Amino acid sequence: MVTAKPSLELVAEVLNGHPRSISRLISRVEARDPECRPALAQIYEHTGRAHLIGITGVPGSGKSTLVRELALAARKTDRTIGIIAIDPSSPFSGGAILGDRIRMNELTGDPGIFIRSMATRGALGGLARASMDAVDLLDAAGFDMILLETVGVGQDEVDIVQAAHTTVVVSAPGLGDDVQAMKAGLLEISDIHVVSKCDRADANKTIIDLKAMLSLGLRMNSTTGWQPPVVRTSAEAKEGIDELLAAIDRHREHLQHSGELAQRRRRTAEMRMLKTAEDILRARFISRDDDIVVDLVERVITRALDPYTAALNLLATLDEGKSDDGGKKRP
Amino acid sequence: MVTAKPSLELVAEVLNGHPRSISRLISRVEARDPECRPALAQIYEHTGRAHLIGITGVPGSGKSTLVRELALAARKTDRTIGIIAIDPSSPFSGGAILGDRIRMNELTGDPGIFIRSMATRGALGGLARASMDAVDLLDAAGFDMILLETVGVGQDEVDIVQAAHTTVVVSAPGLGDDVQAMKAGLLEISDIHVVSKCDRADANKTIIDLKAMLSLGLRMNSTTGWQPPVVRTSAEAKEGIDELLAAIDRHREHLQHSGELAQRRRRTAEMRMLKTAEDILRARFISRDDDIVVDLVERVITRALDPYTAALNLLATLDEGKSDDGGKKRP
Repeated sequence: MVTAKPSLELVAEVLNGHPRSISRLISRVEARDPECRPALAQIYEHTGRAHLIGITGVPGSGKSTLVRELALAARKTDRTIGIIAIDPSSPFSGGAILGDRIRMNELTGDPGIFIRSMATRGALGGLARASMDAVDLLDAAGFDMILLETVGVGQDEVDIVQAAHTTVVVSAPGLGDDVQAMKAGLLEISDIHVVSKCDRADANKTIIDLKAMLSLGLRMNSTTGWQPPVVRTSAEAKEGIDELLAAIDRHREHLQHSGELAQRRRRTAEMRMLKTAEDILRARFISRDDDIVVDLVERVITRALDPYTAALNLLATLDEGKSDDGGKKRP
Repeated sequence: MVTAKPSLELVAEVLNGHPRSISRLISRVEARDPECRPALAQIYEHTGRAHLIGITGVPGSGKSTLVRELALAARKTDRTIGIIAIDPSSPFSGGAILGDRIRMNELTGDPGIFIRSMATRGALGGLARASMDAVDLLDAAGFDMILLETVGVGQDEVDIVQAAHTTVVVSAPGLGDDVQAMKAGLLEISDIHVVSKCDRADANKTIIDLKAMLSLGLRMNSTTGWQPPVVRTSAEAKEGIDELLAAIDRHREHLQHSGELAQRRRRTAEMRMLKTAEDILRARFISRDDDIVVDLVERVITRALDPYTAALNLLATLDEGKSDDGGKKRP
């Protein structure tokens, strides 16, 4: 490929922790630029050292503030921090993304912190794949701790959260029933629960409700005996952040000593392969220049074939080697 | 298959609009019971008549109330209504689902309305496929109008919304910035905008903000000249519902006369095939008894292979005919 060289040239700089090169490659990942795939393949060999923490919670739970405070606290322990904030947004929401970026910006100026927000357009998908590629870049660049902030709603987001070593789910007082219900699925996969905004008078009710939900649906989230703690924080009062960091560190030790880290690495590898395969399939539909797809779709439209049988037929043709971006590198 | 007969026996009853048989088949769809696939294939031939309306909006926007009022208004025009409410929930959120069901329950007792909420577990995925299968059952059963209510966050939900003939996006006053930002991606795919809770004093601000966002990001959501209207509703004051129904009917006529209906049917067929193919892939990972997957995952874990290359390898093996549920029916 003619344009392959530039991304490959960035690899050494990324491995040396050069922030601008990391940022450039993340932009190419976001743009689904196939040219960066060989670089990402090289980067991948250098990953596996960082501790990846997924921080998720419903809108309004104060995740962004918590991520900022957590990053500042972790920096005091001499660790370097990478932050990827995922926005379920579009060009329409420029304001919201900008708002987040400004809040996060207090952290910059410190070379031990790298911050990046990633937006995604609905139709193209690929959020999970792109965010994990970005995590790889920060991991290979030597960041000790990577914070992955997501809203945590929808299949993609649940998949992303499940790829973390440690999952932190943030609850907050004062949110509506609808909003609270959205987080229900997340509670099951949480390693650490945070109740934020504990300076508020109604925080106690939130803690009681959360503990009630947890006791109702109680089951270990691992087979290795980890009991997810509930940590109270108040970003306003700067309280609870050190406790959260300590809980994260305890969970990290638990993962290493219990053998659960290996299980999580397997789950992450599975998720990444699956999400990538899904992206490749999706690209075949979006392009609309694939005769097999066009023909099958036509038969579904005319009711000659049901969608399930059509999907089976499609999968049966995949060995013909079509992919989304020509990255047909096979061993 | 030994258990294949029962679902197939339900087909005739579904086609006659028998609510209990519809409900039974939906439950099997939810449970991913492979036994119901031949029945669904038969059902599919009888679909394509209903008008499918996706109603979506952020949590707290008052979607459920709007759906209820809309169903009651449409019943007055002698149409039969099917409602599928999708909850991004889990066993933890039993309370929330129950709450919705009770609110919806005011509608039952009328045989011209069928209501069903569908929950989904995050790890298994399949929400889009299951909900479209449920829509098929209602379509084939003869319901004139099908309302599909979703929270509208995440790839799956966007895909579901895009499968509707008419997409209604609900905004409401008094929601936080975070929550508002979530809906940004939806505005682009909306055919009709609703601002609910217009009895509230701050509703005007919401309308002004919405119109500002729309003018900022203005682009036709079709190439056929449909201009998405903004409808103000107040479920409390029972206002605006007839206007919403009229807007939906206008959009339906527009789809038919402009030729856009054919485009949307294509998009729906594509989405359903893609989602089904994704589900089949996902099932291969979850089962963990697929040697090819296990080997590839191992190589990704040990960094011998990057996830992208592993995904390409996986797709290249799919012609070996493995599927999630033995439904290897091929013409």
